[in-house]
Amino acid sequence: MRRAEILAIGSELLLGGRLDTNSLFLTDELAALGIEVRWKTIVGDDEADIMDAIRVAGRRAGLVVMTGGLGPTGDDLTREAVARVTGRPLRRHADTVKGMMQRLAARGRTPTAAQMKQALIPTGAAVLDNPVGSAPGFCLSWKTCQLIALPGVPAEAKAMFTKEATRFVAEPLQTRAQARIERRLLHTFGIVEADLDARVGPLAQSRRGVRLGLLASPLGVTVSLTVCGGSSEMAALEQAARAVREELGGLVYAEGTETMEDVVGRALTTRRMTLAVAESCTGGLIGHRLTQVPGSSNYLDRVLVCYSNAAKMELLDVPKMILARHGAVSPEVAAAMAKGVRERSRADVGLSVTGIAGPGGGTAQKPVGLVYVGFDARGAGLLAKEFRFHGPRDTIKLRASQAALNLLRQWLPLAQIHKT
Amino acid sequence: MRRAEILAIGSELLLGGRLDTNSLFLTDELAALGIEVRWKTIVGDDEADIMDAIRVAGRRAGLVVMTGGLGPTGDDLTREAVARVTGRPLRRHADTVKGMMQRLAARGRTPTAAQMKQALIPTGAAVLDNPVGSAPGFCLSWKTCQLIALPGVPAEAKAMFTKEATRFVAEPLQTRAQARIERRLLHTFGIVEADLDARVGPLAQSRRGVRLGLLASPLGVTVSLTVCGGSSEMAALEQAARAVREELGGLVYAEGTETMEDVVGRALTTRRMTLAVAESCTGGLIGHRLTQVPGSSNYLDRVLVCYSNAAKMELLDVPKMILARHGAVSPEVAAAMAKGVRERSRADVGLSVTGIAGPGGGTAQKPVGLVYVGFDARGAGLLAKEFRFHGPRDTIKLRASQAALNLLRQWLPLAQIHKT
Repeated sequence: MRRAEILAIGSELLLGGRLDTNSLFLTDELAALGIEVRWKTIVGDDEADIMDAIRVAGRRAGLVVMTGGLGPTGDDLTREAVARVTGRPLRRHADTVKGMMQRLAARGRTPTAAQMKQALIPTGAAVLDNPVGSAPGFCLSWKTCQLIALPGVPAEAKAMFTKEATRFVAEPLQTRAQARIERRLLHTFGIVEADLDARVGPLAQSRRGVRLGLLASPLGVTVSLTVCGGSSEMAALEQAARAVREELGGLVYAEGTETMEDVVGRALTTRRMTLAVAESCTGGLIGHRLTQVPGSSNYLDRVLVCYSNAAKMELLDVPKMILARHGAVSPEVAAAMAKGVRERSRADVGLSVTGIAGPGGGTAQKPVGLVYVGFDARGAGLLAKEFRFHGPRDTIKLRASQAALNLLRQWLPLAQIHKT
Repeated sequence: MRRAEILAIGSELLLGGRLDTNSLFLTDELAALGIEVRWKTIVGDDEADIMDAIRVAGRRAGLVVMTGGLGPTGDDLTREAVARVTGRPLRRHADTVKGMMQRLAARGRTPTAAQMKQALIPTGAAVLDNPVGSAPGFCLSWKTCQLIALPGVPAEAKAMFTKEATRFVAEPLQTRAQARIERRLLHTFGIVEADLDARVGPLAQSRRGVRLGLLASPLGVTVSLTVCGGSSEMAALEQAARAVREELGGLVYAEGTETMEDVVGRALTTRRMTLAVAESCTGGLIGHRLTQVPGSSNYLDRVLVCYSNAAKMELLDVPKMILARHGAVSPEVAAAMAKGVRERSRADVGLSVTGIAGPGGGTAQKPVGLVYVGFDARGAGLLAKEFRFHGPRDTIKLRASQAALNLLRQWLPLAQIHKT
């Protein structure tokens, strides 16, 4: 198994507000090629620091993928650092200059000195065309490792790696034994990490070479099963995944890259049902998540965010009496909201959320984090369920949106399909 | 200026789906103490890799802050790695054992062997109490550097660093000259990176010691001004920030940690005005963003997500004739949506968005990314503006929500305040 290091270059990645996200897709792409990312290093735009980081990475990893520092400004120092560390002086790459001049000529311009800098490539390096932007990348062998330099802009790095760099990375692999890394992700909601560990830990650990990981977030806990090897390890992975699926049943709402909103959207599409949503404390987050899915306009009729009692009465026909007797955060109001939004919209399914997102507004009887989800559909009837979440406002909103979509997923099969 | 390295330990941080977020607040906390984070390294739960990473970090940085690998399981190897690299064998820390036994006794339990492992501390290290969880951290001097070990759980790492570790970090600083890192962030919307660079580059570079950075995202471009030093550098930073503010005027919508939704919320609160929103292509994202702000229920009356023409007519009184003549994605419909949602809700201001988020639904005349924002308020009248965005669906939704909130910010001063 080859070992890789990802080296992200850019002072902005060392400041407080920004993370290196390129390593996310690079890790996945490399895993698919049988290469394990063992280190990630982040350095600023300082030539000595970059050179040192390249030396450290080259010593311990067989493949070093660098991102960033290939632009036209004085802060972009990756080329220079690679040239100095490897002793391969920079040379102007004729084809890159030609391509740059042609692109700029089409807009009536000529390259500036700064832009010309982007055509400099270490001697002996292979040029990686940039299908999206102007700065090319490059790939070269140095001592016992391969160095690949990609731009820092995620869209450019991704396009270039997928279209160009995989070629250089994959070639030396073919002379090696067949080995790759495979991972299965099973996303759960409604079970805490410790309980999940107790239930799936023994199942995963009994399979040869299967590594178990649990990743918790406000959207639930993801079970990660990873193997590295050949066909027997791949078989063990599939067996472990099957055992976990059987053990957890409906707690698993999605797998791999699929999201809750994808799953819910597919369930509605399959049943040819339409949905109307009434949100209070989630403030539009459920609508936002549902509409992240292309084509959601086919099943999402409308979303009404009704914070005030007046809006709940006026837009959702929630009876004044119910609001007065039970309060806006109650199972009765959640149910009335779901019924109201469904009847007004004539959608097949009504979904609602009402709760206290905090940090203010909580009482001893109705604390911050108390949330009710309502559901209304023919056949299923009118349902409501209580949740108690903890954390800051954004976490409670996220958990509440996830709980509502998860109930929609679970309750939808109860509804009658009355389309022809 | 002291130089620090953050070393995040955990195999889950090397998998595709998870980033090290501890480094974000650590960078800010360290900057406030005058310590610059120059490197971030991420390694998996492998003892040899962790030992190697500690050696590399100890060689180049005066302070190494480690996060992760302090838990009770076999995968938690930070203690062992530190003990072996520094030659300080692990010893059981009596007070930690006592505290652990007391906490568990209160629940009628005794510590397991695995839990007892958390009380092991390298000889000569100072123990950092964990005010949130069970695993203590530690701090020790080794050669020319200080090593600090914190748990990987963000809430624990944060509490422990703030309450305990800063003490150890700050002490040696007091013998040094006063120097700290300060940063000003100015968030802009409506100007591209290249134009921003041309306008603010000369202003920033003429001030001594001021470093300029531009950070682009779908929400706009942030101008980052950083200095490191004493009072003359701090004065240069303020001068540079003032010059950039003057140059950019209304293009700067917020500074520091403030968001667009904070700014808009404050503007509505100051004017004692209420807002109603009608969303189409943004699907609830504007409502979600506005309701991220605590207290937003005071000014946000309602949000209606109306995808279909039927919903636009029924809930927003958009005339059928306008929809038929101009299409749902048009300035006329945007204006009618803003007017409709304002009149129906009796809010002071109506804001609307209609557009094509893609990837489907575009035509030659109305391509994916075409978005109209509408605004209606007494005094300001009925306004609509066109935008053309590029990118995938989520980027177009983000940009459209930002454009709408930015127009609300710009147009709000035109509206009459008619409250008493």
